Amino acid sequence: MTELRGFDSKKFLENFDSVYKLRPQVEQLADRLSNNKYKNIIMIGQGGTVLNWSPVAIYLRHLANIPVYVENAAEMILKKDLRELTSESLVLTNSVSGDTPEILDAVKYVNSKGVSVYGLTGHEDVPLAKLLKDPIYHPVGGTDGSYLLYYMLTLRLYHNFGFFSDYDHWADQMANLGKNLLKFREQFDDRAHKIAEKYYNAPLTMLVGSGMTWNPVMLFSMCILEEMQWVRTRPVKSSDFFHGPLEIVDNTLPVFLIKGEDEYRPLDERVERFIKKFTNKVEVIDSKDFIFDGIDDKYRVMLSPAIFSSILDDRLAYWYHMYRGHDLDFRRYYRQFDY
Amino acid sequence: MTELRGFDSKKFLENFDSVYKLRPQVEQLADRLSNNKYKNIIMIGQGGTVLNWSPVAIYLRHLANIPVYVENAAEMILKKDLRELTSESLVLTNSVSGDTPEILDAVKYVNSKGVSVYGLTGHEDVPLAKLLKDPIYHPVGGTDGSYLLYYMLTLRLYHNFGFFSDYDHWADQMANLGKNLLKFREQFDDRAHKIAEKYYNAPLTMLVGSGMTWNPVMLFSMCILEEMQWVRTRPVKSSDFFHGPLEIVDNTLPVFLIKGEDEYRPLDERVERFIKKFTNKVEVIDSKDFIFDGIDDKYRVMLSPAIFSSILDDRLAYWYHMYRGHDLDFRRYYRQFDY
Repeated sequence: MTELRGFDSKKFLENFDSVYKLRPQVEQLADRLSNNKYKNIIMIGQGGTVLNWSPVAIYLRHLANIPVYVENAAEMILKKDLRELTSESLVLTNSVSGDTPEILDAVKYVNSKGVSVYGLTGHEDVPLAKLLKDPIYHPVGGTDGSYLLYYMLTLRLYHNFGFFSDYDHWADQMANLGKNLLKFREQFDDRAHKIAEKYYNAPLTMLVGSGMTWNPVMLFSMCILEEMQWVRTRPVKSSDFFHGPLEIVDNTLPVFLIKGEDEYRPLDERVERFIKKFTNKVEVIDSKDFIFDGIDDKYRVMLSPAIFSSILDDRLAYWYHMYRGHDLDFRRYYRQFDY
Repeated sequence: MTELRGFDSKKFLENFDSVYKLRPQVEQLADRLSNNKYKNIIMIGQGGTVLNWSPVAIYLRHLANIPVYVENAAEMILKKDLRELTSESLVLTNSVSGDTPEILDAVKYVNSKGVSVYGLTGHEDVPLAKLLKDPIYHPVGGTDGSYLLYYMLTLRLYHNFGFFSDYDHWADQMANLGKNLLKFREQFDDRAHKIAEKYYNAPLTMLVGSGMTWNPVMLFSMCILEEMQWVRTRPVKSSDFFHGPLEIVDNTLPVFLIKGEDEYRPLDERVERFIKKFTNKVEVIDSKDFIFDGIDDKYRVMLSPAIFSSILDDRLAYWYHMYRGHDLDFRRYYRQFDY
């Protein structure tokens, strides 16, 4: 077992276990919500949480013909035509800190329309706790744990509605998720070290993804490299790559392809063929290289964002910060003053 | 009147006039389509045309509760859950060249489902012409002209459906659009020259926008600066700016704020206050500075993408190319070989 620097594996497993232990509480909430009929589901996020909810929304759209919207809180409160928000909407959100101003404003706005907002927050003393109906507290946070909780809540609901029959089997297997995500961290750690060593000082890094990996690409670019490391990035969708961004590719530009396993994989493969010819600074990071123990292959696509949050947002971020000497918690602007 | 270098004003007005002259033909098509009931509208684009259709879709969503989807052709043909495509869908597309492979594949896919695709292409001899039903030919092309044709087709339809009562008044005023867009080019030309001179060689330029200006920001970043000038860009939504990208801002990074007039303007204003404090390389380009003659103010938001295509994709692109010495038509990869 690789010793992961800057990472407390025991504590990670304990935390993940504490998230998994919320299962009865999350399922009870889902069961109560199942007494209603919903015309749509609205997930409210801001910054990173938009990017966490989005793959869950994509996955749910595969399962049933219920519109699932992910709303950026800052935009939502200004929207003129938020027609999808009605008394038949199920509205969800999450903020561990529970004090993100845009989220608070958006939840107040929804509440002002007489619609309840359900979801997750850190603990009962944060401002968001007072605005949510039947909040679930998960002080541990973390992107991996959030994915699990989002899926647990929505898939239990979809099970009750007849759209996800193997919920119990899935949820039982999710007891194995934490140790798999730890294993993936260990598996990727050497490579993360090498990637960071090679590219930590690149003037710009292009990151490419599609479908279920697009939001993880945005999250790693925006919330990790830009916010936490002041590293300049250009996130690009595989479907857009050949309509503009390709022309800036040459040996002066590192390109990281975050390759997924959903229906858009052929678009990633087309990008891969191209970049391997036209820049010698290519990293293809493929979810297929990470094999789950005790979790069925049919759940791989759904869980691919958690694979990438484990290896990118955790290990690769760690090694970037070791080479850049830039604490991951240091901000010069964000939450330092009002703007 | 400013002499616009590299621009034939007389020919531009003639071309725009030829686009406007398609009005009876476009309206007749819309009137025929109005005999059907549609559950939704699907606009198929690829690269730049996704970005052209998107603001039109945003605007239409303000007018009526008809879902309007913009599909990226490359993704559309791979989608597992394209549930919105039914016999009650109105499907539209546009490709002046008429040979964009992704568009051709997507239109064939829609046709294979027994659904017709309507829209625009260059002339009757291009491959797309054979796949469209009742195609409208507009050999002139150009982003400005495309916006006008997209709006003409869809707003006439919305008029017939009872969602846009002042269609005739609007369409009459659109006879003035070409000369206004020429005037805006003249008005912006000196500033475009200065901006290009100052930033043409910047290692990275961040471009920020929201709502109706977000897709124009992406278009200028991706299709002009990256594709045509090999200039590295980081397009950022105003609503995302404060959740990551802000941390890379300092005097080493130029930021162009493309400021619009829709409901998201407060998000642009928040970015403006921030960037004016934290980088001395700020350009705020505000659609409000461009005043239409003979076109009502109530149409300003709808037309803001055309303002930006005139001043950015045309004048600013021209001045970038003059400083970079890089022909706007020169590509090293795009359409040069198969990939």
